[in-house]
Amino acid sequence: MKQAARLRDSRQRRKTGLLLVDGARETLRALQAGVTPVEAFVLEGATGPRITEACQALEVRGVPLVQVAADPFSKLAFGDRADGVVLVAQRCERPLQRLRLPPNPLLLIVERIEKPGNLGAILRTADGAGIDAVVAVDPLADFDNPNVIRASVGAAFREGIAAAPLDETLAWLAELGVQLVVTRPDASAAYTTIDYREPTAIVLGNEADGLSAAWDRLGATAVSLPMHGIADSLNVSTTAAVLAYEARRQRDTP
Amino acid sequence: MKQAARLRDSRQRRKTGLLLVDGARETLRALQAGVTPVEAFVLEGATGPRITEACQALEVRGVPLVQVAADPFSKLAFGDRADGVVLVAQRCERPLQRLRLPPNPLLLIVERIEKPGNLGAILRTADGAGIDAVVAVDPLADFDNPNVIRASVGAAFREGIAAAPLDETLAWLAELGVQLVVTRPDASAAYTTIDYREPTAIVLGNEADGLSAAWDRLGATAVSLPMHGIADSLNVSTTAAVLAYEARRQRDTP
Repeated sequence: MKQAARLRDSRQRRKTGLLLVDGARETLRALQAGVTPVEAFVLEGATGPRITEACQALEVRGVPLVQVAADPFSKLAFGDRADGVVLVAQRCERPLQRLRLPPNPLLLIVERIEKPGNLGAILRTADGAGIDAVVAVDPLADFDNPNVIRASVGAAFREGIAAAPLDETLAWLAELGVQLVVTRPDASAAYTTIDYREPTAIVLGNEADGLSAAWDRLGATAVSLPMHGIADSLNVSTTAAVLAYEARRQRDTP
Repeated sequence: MKQAARLRDSRQRRKTGLLLVDGARETLRALQAGVTPVEAFVLEGATGPRITEACQALEVRGVPLVQVAADPFSKLAFGDRADGVVLVAQRCERPLQRLRLPPNPLLLIVERIEKPGNLGAILRTADGAGIDAVVAVDPLADFDNPNVIRASVGAAFREGIAAAPLDETLAWLAELGVQLVVTRPDASAAYTTIDYREPTAIVLGNEADGLSAAWDRLGATAVSLPMHGIADSLNVSTTAAVLAYEARRQRDTP
Protein backbone atom coordinates (compact mmCIF):
# COMPACT_ATOMS: atom_id res chain seq x y z
CA MET A 1 0.00 0.00 0.00
CA LYS A 2 2.95 2.30 0.64
CA GLN A 3 4.10 1.63 -2.91
CA ALA A 4 0.63 2.52 -4.19
CA ALA A 5 0.66 5.81 -2.27
CA ARG A 6 3.98 6.66 -3.93
CA LEU A 7 2.22 6.66 -7.31
CA ARG A 8 1.06 10.21 -6.55
CA ASP A 9 4.59 11.12 -7.64
CA SER A 10 5.01 11.33 -11.43
CA ARG A 11 8.53 9.88 -11.39
CA GLN A 12 7.25 6.84 -9.54
CA ARG A 13 4.48 6.43 -12.14
CA ARG A 14 6.97 6.53 -14.98
CA LYS A 15 9.32 4.15 -13.19
CA THR A 16 6.65 1.54 -12.39
CA GLY A 17 4.34 2.02 -15.37
CA LEU A 18 1.41 2.25 -12.95
CA LEU A 19 -1.11 4.93 -12.01
CA LEU A 20 -3.73 5.61 -9.33
CA VAL A 21 -7.45 6.17 -9.84
CA ASP A 22 -9.35 7.83 -6.96
CA GLY A 23 -13.03 7.15 -6.62
CA ALA A 24 -15.65 4.55 -7.46
CA ARG A 25 -17.10 6.38 -10.47
CA GLU A 26 -13.65 7.03 -11.91
CA THR A 27 -12.67 3.39 -11.32
CA LEU A 28 -15.77 2.22 -13.19
CA ARG A 29 -15.05 4.51 -16.12
CA ALA A 30 -11.42 3.44 -16.20
CA LEU A 31 -12.49 -0.22 -16.41
CA GLN A 32 -15.11 0.57 -19.06
CA ALA A 33 -12.45 2.38 -21.08
CA GLY A 34 -10.29 -0.75 -21.07
CA VAL A 35 -7.63 0.21 -18.54
CA THR A 36 -5.69 -2.81 -17.24
CA PRO A 37 -6.35 -3.02 -13.47
CA VAL A 38 -3.66 -4.30 -11.10
CA GLU A 39 -5.22 -4.12 -7.63
CA ALA A 40 -7.75 -2.05 -5.71
CA PHE A 41 -7.98 -0.71 -2.17
CA VAL A 42 -11.41 -0.39 -0.57
CA LEU A 43 -12.17 1.47 2.63
CA GLU A 44 -13.53 -0.88 5.30
CA GLY A 45 -17.24 -0.30 5.83
CA ALA A 46 -17.64 1.97 2.78
CA THR A 47 -21.10 1.53 1.28
CA GLY A 48 -23.26 2.95 -1.47
CA PRO A 49 -24.45 1.88 -4.92
CA ARG A 50 -21.40 3.24 -6.75
CA ILE A 51 -18.94 1.49 -4.45
CA THR A 52 -20.88 -1.77 -4.78
CA GLU A 53 -20.90 -1.41 -8.56
CA ALA A 54 -17.17 -0.65 -8.66
CA CYS A 55 -16.32 -3.64 -6.42
CA GLN A 56 -18.44 -5.96 -8.57
CA ALA A 57 -16.74 -4.71 -11.75
CA LEU A 58 -13.35 -5.31 -10.12
CA GLU A 59 -14.29 -8.79 -8.90
CA VAL A 60 -15.62 -9.82 -12.33
CA ARG A 61 -12.21 -8.96 -13.73
CA GLY A 62 -10.43 -10.91 -10.99
CA VAL A 63 -8.76 -7.81 -9.54
CA PRO A 64 -7.39 -8.32 -6.00
CA LEU A 65 -9.43 -6.20 -3.55
CA VAL A 66 -7.64 -5.11 -0.39
CA GLN A 67 -9.84 -3.94 2.51
CA VAL A 68 -8.17 -1.01 4.31
CA ALA A 69 -9.02 0.66 7.64
CA ALA A 70 -9.88 4.37 7.72
CA ASP A 71 -6.52 5.62 8.95
CA PRO A 72 -4.19 3.99 6.39
CA PHE A 73 -6.80 4.58 3.66
CA SER A 74 -6.72 8.33 4.27
CA LYS A 75 -2.98 8.27 3.58
CA LEU A 76 -3.50 6.50 0.27
CA ALA A 77 -6.57 8.35 -1.00
CA PHE A 78 -6.68 11.95 -2.19
CA GLY A 79 -7.75 14.25 0.64
CA ASP A 80 -11.39 14.99 1.24
CA ARG A 81 -12.52 13.77 -2.15
CA ALA A 82 -11.80 10.12 -1.38
CA ASP A 83 -14.95 8.06 -1.54
CA GLY A 84 -13.72 4.60 -0.55
CA VAL A 85 -12.13 3.10 -3.68
CA VAL A 86 -8.60 3.54 -5.04
CA LEU A 87 -7.50 1.55 -8.10
CA VAL A 88 -3.93 0.80 -9.19
CA ALA A 89 -3.83 0.30 -12.97
CA GLN A 90 -1.33 0.17 -15.79
CA ARG A 91 -0.29 3.40 -17.48
CA CYS A 92 -0.52 3.44 -21.23
CA GLU A 93 1.38 5.47 -23.76
CA ARG A 94 -0.60 8.01 -25.73
CA PRO A 95 1.31 8.77 -28.96
CA LEU A 96 -0.25 10.74 -31.83
CA GLN A 97 0.10 7.67 -34.05
CA ARG A 98 -2.49 5.76 -32.05
CA LEU A 99 -5.24 8.31 -32.67
CA ARG A 100 -7.91 7.18 -35.09
CA LEU A 101 -9.71 10.14 -36.61
CA PRO A 102 -12.90 10.47 -38.65
CA PRO A 103 -12.73 12.08 -42.14
CA ASN A 104 -13.78 15.53 -40.86
CA PRO A 105 -12.08 15.76 -37.47
CA LEU A 106 -12.66 18.28 -34.71
CA LEU A 107 -9.55 18.50 -32.50
CA LEU A 108 -8.58 20.30 -29.32
CA ILE A 109 -4.87 21.03 -28.89
CA VAL A 110 -3.65 22.33 -25.53
CA GLU A 111 -0.07 23.54 -25.14
CA ARG A 112 1.87 23.31 -21.86
CA ILE A 113 -1.15 23.15 -19.57
CA GLU A 114 0.10 23.38 -16.03
CA LYS A 115 -2.80 22.88 -13.63
CA PRO A 116 -4.12 19.32 -13.31
CA GLY A 117 -7.60 20.70 -12.61
CA ASN A 118 -7.59 22.55 -15.92
CA LEU A 119 -6.35 19.59 -17.97
CA GLY A 120 -8.92 17.31 -16.31
CA ALA A 121 -11.75 19.79 -16.89
CA ILE A 122 -10.73 20.12 -20.56
CA LEU A 123 -10.81 16.33 -21.01
CA ARG A 124 -14.24 16.17 -19.38
CA THR A 125 -15.63 18.96 -21.60
CA ALA A 126 -14.07 17.52 -24.76
CA ASP A 127 -15.71 14.19 -23.99
CA GLY A 128 -19.08 15.89 -23.56
CA ALA A 129 -18.76 18.02 -26.68
CA GLY A 130 -17.77 15.06 -28.85
CA ILE A 131 -14.28 16.31 -29.69
CA ASP A 132 -12.56 13.60 -31.78
CA ALA A 133 -9.17 13.98 -30.11
CA VAL A 134 -7.40 16.04 -27.46
CA VAL A 135 -3.65 16.49 -27.90
CA ALA A 136 -1.61 17.76 -24.95
CA VAL A 137 1.50 19.44 -26.33
CA ASP A 138 4.48 19.37 -23.94
CA PRO A 139 2.08 19.05 -20.98
CA LEU A 140 3.25 20.18 -17.53
CA ALA A 141 0.49 18.01 -16.01
CA ASP A 142 0.24 14.37 -17.18
CA PHE A 143 -2.85 12.42 -18.18
CA ASP A 144 -1.99 9.92 -15.44
CA ASN A 145 -1.78 12.57 -12.70
CA PRO A 146 -4.43 11.48 -10.13
CA ASN A 147 -5.82 15.02 -9.98
CA VAL A 148 -6.21 15.13 -13.77
CA ILE A 149 -8.04 11.80 -13.66
CA ARG A 150 -10.28 13.02 -10.87
CA ALA A 151 -11.08 16.38 -12.52
CA SER A 152 -11.82 14.57 -15.80
CA VAL A 153 -14.33 12.32 -13.95
CA GLY A 154 -12.77 9.40 -15.77
CA ALA A 155 -12.64 10.97 -19.24
CA ALA A 156 -8.82 10.78 -19.01
CA PHE A 157 -9.13 7.08 -19.93
CA ARG A 158 -11.03 7.60 -23.17
CA GLU A 159 -9.59 6.95 -26.57
CA GLY A 160 -8.88 10.07 -28.56
CA ILE A 161 -6.24 11.43 -26.20
CA ALA A 162 -2.55 11.94 -27.02
CA ALA A 163 0.51 13.73 -25.68
CA ALA A 164 3.33 14.90 -27.96
CA PRO A 165 6.13 17.43 -28.29
CA LEU A 166 5.42 20.68 -30.17
CA ASP A 167 7.44 19.87 -33.33
CA GLU A 168 5.79 16.51 -33.76
CA THR A 169 2.32 17.99 -33.24
CA LEU A 170 2.89 20.76 -35.77
CA ALA A 171 4.07 18.24 -38.39
CA TRP A 172 1.12 15.97 -37.66
CA LEU A 173 -1.38 18.82 -37.99
CA ALA A 174 0.21 20.04 -41.24
CA GLU A 175 -0.14 16.56 -42.68
CA LEU A 176 -3.77 16.32 -41.57
CA GLY A 177 -4.51 19.59 -43.35
CA VAL A 178 -6.98 20.91 -40.74
CA GLN A 179 -7.65 24.61 -40.24
CA LEU A 180 -5.93 25.93 -37.10
CA VAL A 181 -7.93 28.18 -34.78
CA VAL A 182 -5.69 29.59 -32.05
CA THR A 183 -7.05 31.47 -29.05
CA ARG A 184 -5.27 34.66 -28.00
CA PRO A 185 -6.78 37.23 -25.63
CA ASP A 186 -5.65 40.08 -27.92
CA ALA A 187 -7.06 38.63 -31.16
CA SER A 188 -9.58 40.95 -32.81
CA ALA A 189 -11.68 38.23 -34.47
CA ALA A 190 -14.41 36.65 -32.35
CA TYR A 191 -14.39 32.85 -32.05
CA THR A 192 -17.88 32.87 -33.62
CA THR A 193 -16.52 34.00 -37.01
CA ILE A 194 -15.03 30.55 -37.69
CA ASP A 195 -16.72 27.80 -39.72
CA TYR A 196 -16.08 24.80 -37.46
CA ARG A 197 -17.83 22.40 -39.85
CA GLU A 198 -14.51 22.13 -41.70
CA PRO A 199 -11.75 19.88 -40.36
CA THR A 200 -10.57 22.00 -37.43
CA ALA A 201 -8.06 22.07 -34.61
CA ILE A 202 -8.83 24.50 -31.76
CA VAL A 203 -5.56 25.46 -30.03
CA LEU A 204 -5.22 26.81 -26.46
CA GLY A 205 -2.11 27.77 -24.55
CA ASN A 206 -0.54 27.75 -21.10
CA GLU A 207 -2.46 29.43 -18.26
CA ALA A 208 0.09 32.22 -17.75
CA ASP A 209 2.10 32.40 -20.98
CA GLY A 210 -0.46 31.50 -23.64
CA LEU A 211 0.67 29.96 -26.92
CA SER A 212 4.18 29.83 -28.30
CA ALA A 213 4.88 31.82 -31.48
CA ALA A 214 5.35 28.68 -33.59
CA TRP A 215 1.58 28.40 -34.08
CA ASP A 216 1.40 31.59 -36.12
CA ARG A 217 3.83 30.28 -38.72
CA LEU A 218 1.27 27.68 -39.84
CA GLY A 219 -1.28 30.20 -41.06
CA ALA A 220 -3.44 29.86 -37.99
CA THR A 221 -6.45 32.12 -37.44
CA ALA A 222 -6.34 33.87 -34.07
CA VAL A 223 -9.62 34.37 -32.23
CA SER A 224 -10.76 35.53 -28.82
CA LEU A 225 -13.86 35.46 -26.68
CA PRO A 226 -15.73 38.78 -26.50
CA MET A 227 -14.94 40.20 -23.05
CA HIS A 228 -17.55 42.66 -21.81
CA GLY A 229 -16.31 43.20 -18.25
CA ILE A 230 -13.24 44.02 -16.20
CA ALA A 231 -11.15 40.97 -17.17
CA ASP A 232 -9.28 40.45 -20.44
CA SER A 233 -9.62 36.66 -20.61
CA LEU A 234 -11.26 33.63 -19.05
CA ASN A 235 -9.75 30.48 -17.55
CA VAL A 236 -8.32 28.14 -20.22
CA SER A 237 -10.80 25.36 -19.45
CA THR A 238 -13.72 27.79 -19.70
CA THR A 239 -12.43 29.09 -23.04
CA ALA A 240 -12.05 25.51 -24.27
CA ALA A 241 -15.65 24.76 -23.28
CA VAL A 242 -17.10 27.78 -25.06
CA LEU A 243 -15.21 27.04 -28.30
CA ALA A 244 -15.82 23.29 -28.20
CA TYR A 245 -19.57 23.75 -27.78
CA GLU A 246 -19.74 26.44 -30.45
CA ALA A 247 -18.07 23.98 -32.85
CA ARG A 248 -20.51 21.28 -31.73
CA ARG A 249 -23.47 23.64 -32.23
CA GLN A 250 -22.40 24.48 -35.78
CA ARG A 251 -21.81 20.84 -36.67
CA ASP A 252 -25.18 19.77 -35.22
CA THR A 253 -27.15 22.56 -36.93
CA PRO A 254 -28.74 21.19 -40.12
CA MET B 1 -3.51 41.12 11.98
CA LYS B 2 -4.93 38.21 13.96
CA GLN B 3 -8.35 39.80 13.65
CA ALA B 4 -7.86 40.12 9.89
CA ALA B 5 -6.92 36.44 9.60
CA ARG B 6 -10.16 35.54 11.38
CA LEU B 7 -12.10 37.07 8.47
CA ARG B 8 -11.60 33.79 6.60
CA ASP B 9 -14.48 32.60 8.80
CA SER B 10 -17.92 33.63 7.46
CA ARG B 11 -19.38 34.25 10.95
CA GLN B 12 -16.56 36.66 11.68
CA ARG B 13 -17.25 38.48 8.39
CA ARG B 14 -20.93 38.87 9.25
CA LYS B 15 -20.12 39.99 12.79
CA THR B 16 -17.57 42.62 11.78
CA GLY B 17 -19.00 43.66 8.41
CA LEU B 18 -15.54 43.21 6.90
CA LEU B 19 -14.02 40.93 4.25
CA LEU B 20 -10.58 39.90 2.96
CA VAL B 21 -9.23 40.31 -0.55
CA ASP B 22 -6.20 38.18 -1.50
CA GLY B 23 -3.90 39.42 -4.22
CA ALA B 24 -2.76 42.63 -5.87
CA ARG B 25 -4.91 42.26 -8.99
CA GLU B 26 -7.99 41.47 -6.93
CA THR B 27 -7.27 44.42 -4.62
CA LEU B 28 -7.03 46.75 -7.62
CA ARG B 29 -10.31 45.48 -9.04
CA ALA B 30 -12.01 45.78 -5.66
CA LEU B 31 -10.90 49.42 -5.41
CA GLN B 32 -11.95 50.12 -9.00
CA ALA B 33 -15.37 48.63 -8.22
CA GLY B 34 -15.83 51.09 -5.35
CA VAL B 35 -15.23 48.80 -2.37
CA THR B 36 -14.50 50.74 0.84
CA PRO B 37 -10.98 49.78 1.97
CA VAL B 38 -10.09 49.61 5.66
CA GLU B 39 -6.44 48.57 5.78
CA ALA B 40 -3.97 46.51 3.77
CA PHE B 41 -1.15 44.12 4.61
CA VAL B 42 1.85 43.96 2.30
CA LEU B 43 4.54 41.30 2.40
CA GLU B 44 7.96 42.84 3.19
CA GLY B 45 10.15 42.84 0.09
CA ALA B 46 7.36 41.89 -2.30
CA THR B 47 7.94 43.48 -5.69
CA GLY B 48 6.45 43.56 -9.16
CA PRO B 49 4.38 45.96 -11.27
CA ARG B 50 1.03 44.74 -9.95
CA ILE B 51 2.05 45.06 -6.31
CA THR B 52 3.41 48.56 -6.97
CA GLU B 53 0.18 49.53 -8.71
CA ALA B 54 -1.95 48.12 -5.89
CA CYS B 55 0.10 49.92 -3.21
CA GLN B 56 -0.17 53.21 -5.10
CA ALA B 57 -3.93 52.81 -5.44
CA LEU B 58 -4.17 52.12 -1.71
CA GLU B 59 -1.96 55.11 -0.79
CA VAL B 60 -3.95 57.48 -3.02
CA ARG B 61 -7.04 56.49 -1.03
CA GLY B 62 -5.26 56.99 2.30
CA VAL B 63 -5.51 53.31 3.26
CA PRO B 64 -3.12 52.30 6.08
CA LEU B 65 -0.47 49.92 4.68
CA VAL B 66 1.05 47.48 7.16
CA GLN B 67 4.35 45.85 6.15
CA VAL B 68 4.43 42.22 7.31
CA ALA B 69 7.32 39.72 7.45
CA ALA B 70 7.06 36.45 5.50
CA ASP B 71 6.14 34.21 8.42
CA PRO B 72 3.15 36.12 9.83
CA PHE B 73 2.07 37.03 6.27
CA SER B 74 1.78 33.36 5.34
CA LYS B 75 -0.70 32.92 8.20
CA LEU B 76 -2.83 35.78 6.96
CA ALA B 77 -2.70 35.13 3.21
CA PHE B 78 -4.37 32.28 1.39
CA GLY B 79 -1.92 29.38 0.90
CA ASP B 80 0.24 29.21 -2.17
CA ARG B 81 -1.77 31.73 -4.14
CA ALA B 82 -0.77 34.66 -1.97
CA ASP B 83 1.15 37.26 -3.95
CA GLY B 84 2.04 39.83 -1.33
CA VAL B 85 -1.08 41.96 -0.81
CA VAL B 86 -4.10 41.32 1.41
CA LEU B 87 -6.82 43.97 1.73
CA VAL B 88 -9.39 44.32 4.49
CA ALA B 89 -12.51 46.05 3.17
CA GLN B 90 -16.12 46.62 4.10
CA ARG B 91 -18.70 44.03 3.15
CA CYS B 92 -21.74 45.31 1.37
CA GLU B 93 -25.22 43.90 1.22
CA ARG B 94 -26.38 42.64 -2.15
CA PRO B 95 -30.21 42.66 -2.16
CA LEU B 96 -32.23 42.15 -5.36
CA GLN B 97 -33.67 45.65 -4.96
CA ARG B 98 -30.28 47.24 -5.64
CA LEU B 99 -29.94 45.68 -9.08
CA ARG B 100 -30.41 48.08 -11.96
CA LEU B 101 -31.35 46.24 -15.14
CA PRO B 102 -31.53 47.29 -18.77
CA PRO B 103 -34.86 46.96 -20.64
CA ASN B 104 -33.97 43.57 -22.16
CA PRO B 105 -32.03 41.86 -19.40
CA LEU B 106 -29.90 38.72 -19.59
CA LEU B 107 -29.67 37.14 -16.13
CA LEU B 108 -27.85 34.21 -14.58
CA ILE B 109 -29.52 32.63 -11.54
CA VAL B 110 -27.56 30.04 -9.54
CA GLU B 111 -29.29 28.08 -6.77
CA ARG B 112 -27.47 26.78 -3.68
CA ILE B 113 -23.99 26.74 -5.20
CA GLU B 114 -21.69 25.06 -2.71
CA LYS B 115 -18.12 25.30 -3.96
CA PRO B 116 -16.48 28.73 -3.73
CA GLY B 117 -14.40 27.92 -6.84
CA ASN B 118 -17.56 27.35 -8.87
CA LEU B 119 -19.30 30.52 -7.69
CA GLY B 120 -16.16 32.56 -8.36
CA ALA B 121 -15.72 31.05 -11.83
CA ILE B 122 -19.37 31.79 -12.64
CA LEU B 123 -18.95 35.44 -11.60
CA ARG B 124 -15.81 35.73 -13.76
CA THR B 125 -17.54 34.20 -16.80
CA ALA B 126 -20.71 36.29 -16.32
CA ASP B 127 -18.55 39.41 -16.23
CA GLY B 128 -16.84 38.37 -19.47
CA ALA B 129 -20.05 37.44 -21.25
CA GLY B 130 -21.77 40.70 -20.32
CA ILE B 131 -24.49 39.14 -18.17
CA ASP B 132 -26.56 41.99 -16.67
CA ALA B 133 -26.95 40.39 -13.24
CA VAL B 134 -26.02 37.23 -11.36
CA VAL B 135 -28.37 36.21 -8.54
CA ALA B 136 -27.18 33.63 -6.02
CA VAL B 137 -30.25 31.93 -4.56
CA ASP B 138 -29.73 30.58 -1.01
CA PRO B 139 -25.97 30.35 -1.68
CA LEU B 140 -23.88 27.90 0.37
CA ALA B 141 -20.80 29.94 -0.56
CA ASP B 142 -20.93 33.73 -0.02
CA PHE B 143 -19.81 36.49 -2.38
CA ASP B 144 -17.45 37.67 0.36
CA ASN B 145 -15.78 34.26 0.79
CA PRO B 146 -12.08 34.91 0.04
CA ASN B 147 -11.96 31.88 -2.28
CA VAL B 148 -14.96 33.16 -4.26
CA ILE B 149 -13.28 36.54 -4.60
CA ARG B 150 -10.04 34.93 -5.73
CA ALA B 151 -11.69 32.56 -8.25
CA SER B 152 -13.71 35.48 -9.64
CA VAL B 153 -10.44 37.42 -10.19
CA GLY B 154 -12.18 40.42 -8.64
CA ALA B 155 -15.48 40.13 -10.54
CA ALA B 156 -17.17 39.46 -7.17
CA PHE B 157 -17.03 43.24 -6.55
CA ARG B 158 -18.88 44.25 -9.69
CA GLU B 159 -22.35 45.70 -9.69
CA GLY B 160 -25.01 43.38 -11.00
CA ILE B 161 -24.63 40.79 -8.25
CA ALA B 162 -27.28 39.87 -5.69
CA ALA B 163 -28.05 37.14 -3.16
CA ALA B 164 -31.62 36.28 -2.14
CA PRO B 165 -33.82 33.49 -0.79
CA LEU B 166 -35.70 31.32 -3.29
CA ASP B 167 -39.20 32.72 -2.66
CA GLU B 168 -38.05 36.29 -3.08
CA THR B 169 -36.18 35.46 -6.28
CA LEU B 170 -39.15 33.66 -7.82
CA ALA B 171 -41.44 36.62 -7.06
CA TRP B 172 -38.88 39.07 -8.46
CA LEU B 173 -38.47 37.07 -11.68
CA ALA B 174 -42.25 36.73 -12.11
CA GLU B 175 -42.58 40.49 -11.83
CA LEU B 176 -39.74 41.06 -14.33
CA GLY B 177 -41.54 38.83 -16.82
CA VAL B 178 -38.39 37.22 -18.25
CA GLN B 179 -38.37 33.79 -19.85
CA LEU B 180 -36.85 31.16 -17.55
CA VAL B 181 -34.37 28.70 -19.03
CA VAL B 182 -33.49 26.02 -16.48
CA THR B 183 -30.66 23.53 -17.00
CA ARG B 184 -31.33 19.89 -16.16
CA PRO B 185 -29.09 17.02 -17.32
CA ASP B 186 -32.17 14.97 -18.30
CA ALA B 187 -33.89 17.69 -20.35
CA SER B 188 -34.46 16.62 -23.94
CA ALA B 189 -34.24 20.12 -25.49
CA ALA B 190 -30.77 21.40 -26.34
CA TYR B 191 -29.75 24.78 -24.91
CA THR B 192 -29.33 25.99 -28.50
CA THR B 193 -33.10 25.84 -29.18
CA ILE B 194 -33.71 28.95 -27.01
CA ASP B 195 -34.01 32.51 -28.34
CA TYR B 196 -31.84 34.37 -25.85
CA ARG B 197 -32.49 37.75 -27.49
CA GLU B 198 -35.65 37.97 -25.41
CA PRO B 199 -35.46 39.00 -21.74
CA THR B 200 -34.01 35.82 -20.25
CA ALA B 201 -32.91 34.28 -16.99
CA ILE B 202 -30.64 31.22 -17.26
CA VAL B 203 -31.01 29.10 -14.11
CA LEU B 204 -28.46 26.57 -12.79
CA GLY B 205 -28.63 24.40 -9.69
CA ASN B 206 -26.52 22.93 -6.91
CA GLU B 207 -23.50 20.80 -7.90
CA ALA B 208 -24.92 17.55 -6.51
CA ASP B 209 -28.69 18.08 -6.23
CA GLY B 210 -29.45 20.32 -9.20
CA LEU B 211 -32.46 22.65 -9.10
CA SER B 212 -35.36 22.55 -6.68
CA ALA B 213 -38.78 21.65 -8.10
CA ALA B 214 -40.14 25.16 -7.53
CA TRP B 215 -38.60 26.34 -10.83
CA ASP B 216 -40.87 24.12 -12.91
CA ARG B 217 -44.01 25.71 -11.51
CA LEU B 218 -43.16 29.01 -13.23
CA GLY B 219 -43.41 27.63 -16.75
CA ALA B 220 -39.66 27.35 -17.17
CA THR B 221 -38.15 25.70 -20.25
CA ALA B 222 -35.73 22.91 -19.33
CA VAL B 223 -32.63 22.48 -21.50
CA SER B 224 -29.42 20.47 -21.41
CA LEU B 225 -26.04 20.44 -23.10
CA PRO B 226 -25.62 17.71 -25.72
CA MET B 227 -23.41 15.07 -24.09
CA HIS B 228 -21.55 12.91 -26.61
CA GLY B 229 -19.32 10.95 -24.25
CA ILE B 230 -19.31 8.86 -21.09
CA ALA B 231 -20.55 11.57 -18.70
CA ASP B 232 -24.12 12.81 -18.31
CA SER B 233 -23.33 16.40 -17.37
CA LEU B 234 -20.57 18.99 -17.06
CA ASN B 235 -19.44 21.06 -14.10
CA VAL B 236 -21.93 23.82 -13.22
CA SER B 237 -19.46 26.63 -14.01
CA THR B 238 -18.70 25.06 -17.42
CA THR B 239 -22.42 24.74 -18.19
CA ALA B 240 -22.91 28.38 -17.15
CA ALA B 241 -20.11 29.47 -19.51
CA VAL B 242 -21.50 27.59 -22.52
CA LEU B 243 -25.01 28.99 -22.04
CA ALA B 244 -23.87 32.53 -21.22
CA TYR B 245 -21.71 32.72 -24.35
CA GLU B 246 -24.43 31.20 -26.55
CA ALA B 247 -26.78 33.94 -25.31
CA ARG B 248 -24.06 36.53 -25.98
CA ARG B 249 -23.49 35.14 -29.49
CA GLN B 250 -27.18 35.35 -30.35
CA ARG B 251 -27.48 38.88 -28.98
CA ASP B 252 -24.36 40.05 -30.83
CA THR B 253 -25.36 38.46 -34.15
CA PRO B 254 -26.98 41.13 -36.34
